[in-house]
Amino acid sequence: MNGLVKDLARLIGDSKVLFQPEDLLAYANDATHYFRTQLPDAAVLPTSTEEVARVMSYAHQHHIPVTPRGAGSGLSGGATPVKGGIVVDTKRLNRILEIDRANMTASVEGGVVLQNFHRAVEERGLFYPPDPQSMSVCTIGGNVATRAGGPRGVKYGTTGNYVTGLEVVLPDGSIIKTGGKFVKQSVGYDLTHLMTGSEGTLGIITGVNVRLLTLPPSTRTMVVVCETLDQAAEIVSEIIARGAVPAMMEFLIKLAITVMNNYVDPPLPTDGEAFLLIEMDGTPAQIESDIKTIKEICNEMKAREVREVDDERAAKAYWNARSNIYPLIMTIFNRAISEDITVPRSRIPDLVRAVQEIAASVGIMIGLAGHAGDGNMHPTILQTEINDEMAAKAKQAIELMVRRGLELGGTISGEHGIGIHKQEFLDWEFDQVQIDLMKRIKQAFDPYGIMNPGKIWLEGGEQ
Amino acid sequence: MNGLVKDLARLIGDSKVLFQPEDLLAYANDATHYFRTQLPDAAVLPTSTEEVARVMSYAHQHHIPVTPRGAGSGLSGGATPVKGGIVVDTKRLNRILEIDRANMTASVEGGVVLQNFHRAVEERGLFYPPDPQSMSVCTIGGNVATRAGGPRGVKYGTTGNYVTGLEVVLPDGSIIKTGGKFVKQSVGYDLTHLMTGSEGTLGIITGVNVRLLTLPPSTRTMVVVCETLDQAAEIVSEIIARGAVPAMMEFLIKLAITVMNNYVDPPLPTDGEAFLLIEMDGTPAQIESDIKTIKEICNEMKAREVREVDDERAAKAYWNARSNIYPLIMTIFNRAISEDITVPRSRIPDLVRAVQEIAASVGIMIGLAGHAGDGNMHPTILQTEINDEMAAKAKQAIELMVRRGLELGGTISGEHGIGIHKQEFLDWEFDQVQIDLMKRIKQAFDPYGIMNPGKIWLEGGEQ
Repeated sequence: MNGLVKDLARLIGDSKVLFQPEDLLAYANDATHYFRTQLPDAAVLPTSTEEVARVMSYAHQHHIPVTPRGAGSGLSGGATPVKGGIVVDTKRLNRILEIDRANMTASVEGGVVLQNFHRAVEERGLFYPPDPQSMSVCTIGGNVATRAGGPRGVKYGTTGNYVTGLEVVLPDGSIIKTGGKFVKQSVGYDLTHLMTGSEGTLGIITGVNVRLLTLPPSTRTMVVVCETLDQAAEIVSEIIARGAVPAMMEFLIKLAITVMNNYVDPPLPTDGEAFLLIEMDGTPAQIESDIKTIKEICNEMKAREVREVDDERAAKAYWNARSNIYPLIMTIFNRAISEDITVPRSRIPDLVRAVQEIAASVGIMIGLAGHAGDGNMHPTILQTEINDEMAAKAKQAIELMVRRGLELGGTISGEHGIGIHKQEFLDWEFDQVQIDLMKRIKQAFDPYGIMNPGKIWLEGGEQ
Repeated sequence: MNGLVKDLARLIGDSKVLFQPEDLLAYANDATHYFRTQLPDAAVLPTSTEEVARVMSYAHQHHIPVTPRGAGSGLSGGATPVKGGIVVDTKRLNRILEIDRANMTASVEGGVVLQNFHRAVEERGLFYPPDPQSMSVCTIGGNVATRAGGPRGVKYGTTGNYVTGLEVVLPDGSIIKTGGKFVKQSVGYDLTHLMTGSEGTLGIITGVNVRLLTLPPSTRTMVVVCETLDQAAEIVSEIIARGAVPAMMEFLIKLAITVMNNYVDPPLPTDGEAFLLIEMDGTPAQIESDIKTIKEICNEMKAREVREVDDERAAKAYWNARSNIYPLIMTIFNRAISEDITVPRSRIPDLVRAVQEIAASVGIMIGLAGHAGDGNMHPTILQTEINDEMAAKAKQAIELMVRRGLELGGTISGEHGIGIHKQEFLDWEFDQVQIDLMKRIKQAFDPYGIMNPGKIWLEGGEQ
């Protein structure tokens, strides 16, 4: 047991400090192990905000790097401890502190697993829309740190639209509470939303206040089977333009449906090339009216088939399979690199065409799935062989897709964050003035640069 | 013409620089002239972002204070040039650049008057919910700078919920573009929302991207007449708790209705003490169902009367009178100091009782109006005599109300901002750690402290 570990054990107790290599291996990366792994020197599992503060204060004093971690389900390497040091695992900060029916708000600790929270609010007839597809494991603190989204972005926005306040341990170990239990506040700088999406580089999120909605009285699922990817993209664009805004509108290709069909019964149709999995929510009358509009559009635009899913159990199974598409795909391929390009939604057809062209020209397989309704697509590079040539092709394809997304008026990340995966593209989206401003903000929070160092921007050089 | 004025004229042209005392008088304060007035040394009226940048770059070089200004309709003294220097009037940056039906987004210059924007989007069947009650004059850039709200907060949130990107001239004259035409982005720090509510202390907002909704197919207005203020507050709480969320739910007292009745036909009922002016929006079926719920609640809770307003023209007149209540009140009183306290909405009854008690104990008249549905109340101190004794009583009443709001879990400003009016209360809401952090962020943007100096926090002393 080295000095660091002894000190940490003294601060928060033996049982909350991990230091054996076999334990630390679990903290060497997030879901993007293929980008980079790095063992931390220690991992801690605090059970209270005060313990997080004690660790942070110690790290500040000794200038030790600290990497905060939710569930480690991130897709950009944000939780990879690239400089070693201490990983702060927040998963034991897992108490739901309050669900306030009258005010339609909730207060939770940062390590609460999203699915547990969804269940708890839904039992009370309330609704928290954000649902990144890793929701069975991911934590709300992690969601805030990455500004996580998911399929409901089209109608309901993302995590940032629901967070109204935070408890944060700052890099020097002090604790602040931002915002509160209200939807209106105009008191100084909005630190709540500055922390949201900061990827652990400004502090550790130990508490989260969110606003809630009332649970929609009913939902209905439908599947649109399309002849081509282009046709599916055009239908998405038209549905939104005509004002029938679904709760979710997922774009899937035949490969995804084929894989999903191993886990659902009855199977989804596979006689098209692209598919839209749609959920409408609201009052039954509203849903009927929207379904009518969508059917009209699909007929006009000659979709192969529009199928309403009347069986609630089947609908649930389809959405569950959709959530698990990444692990399901991994039963076939050895590597899946999920991109996260968002464009103004009317440009979805252009993006879909571009991805197909890039796949063909680079000579690589790219699966297409995404939250088409809000313009957020996840083209996913699928590889069975892992070698230098394939890695180079993947890199080339990613660069081409990111570049095209920006040309279409989009952004390099819709909901995964930059982490280490997208650092080299940051100055494709922002000029140096904006990047320098972000660095000065970082400096205002973290003068010693100990808080999740090596993330968002590249170190050294122009960035 | 002094050196400053000559330099400014050289930078952006004679016709865009004001320097005569009679012109500058119009820039000496906002709608809170009774707090403080201060003549600037010059006012400029740039017509492009580049001209704003030229002025800012000059001011940065010479360390001259700059106060950005929208319409000057603010209620916290945020646009009062307390250190003199240059006022940048943004009202000539008034072009609506794009309303994009397919993507449901818009892009405007910062000086666009909100009402003009509302009209333009509504003509296209789209909807931009934020509507601070000064919307006939206020600018969108000003709305963003103060995180402006209005009655629609209860259902739709405030300006911050709609802004997706900004063009900002930084204190050194450089121009950045944050965010974009998309609802999902996770790329570095959220400068869009850091600027939102920064009250002109971090930069000048010259361009704004917002997301839009589809215009609700129908609306309906109703008036609930209540025996007492307490009863009205309890009904508000119950309506929200039962999930019938109105688009607007305004709390008004008899005095307000009496004044409004001089400007509407048919008159509103005046046989109660407190009134709820409610607008429901949505599909006709949804509205019918919500009205039914509200009527049931009002009956159960023994409201004096529930009146549906079937005449659309009358409904419009009521809402118009509500918007103009501040100027209407000023036809009777010589001073009206509008407070802006927000509490969790279930605490509205407690806040209403507290305000009545404070009015009685201090011996001062306090009118009560507010966006009750979202917990944002505007208790308004009404004075006919203006003298030192009344000023002292007003100060005492404000302090008591702000203190009580915080005790109820609220915030010192829901939508007006801090400006100079609420500076002394900032450390009632935030501890010194959080205030110091905000100051360091300010320093990261504005090392010479030239950008709207003397606002948000007090200078010198502990804050």
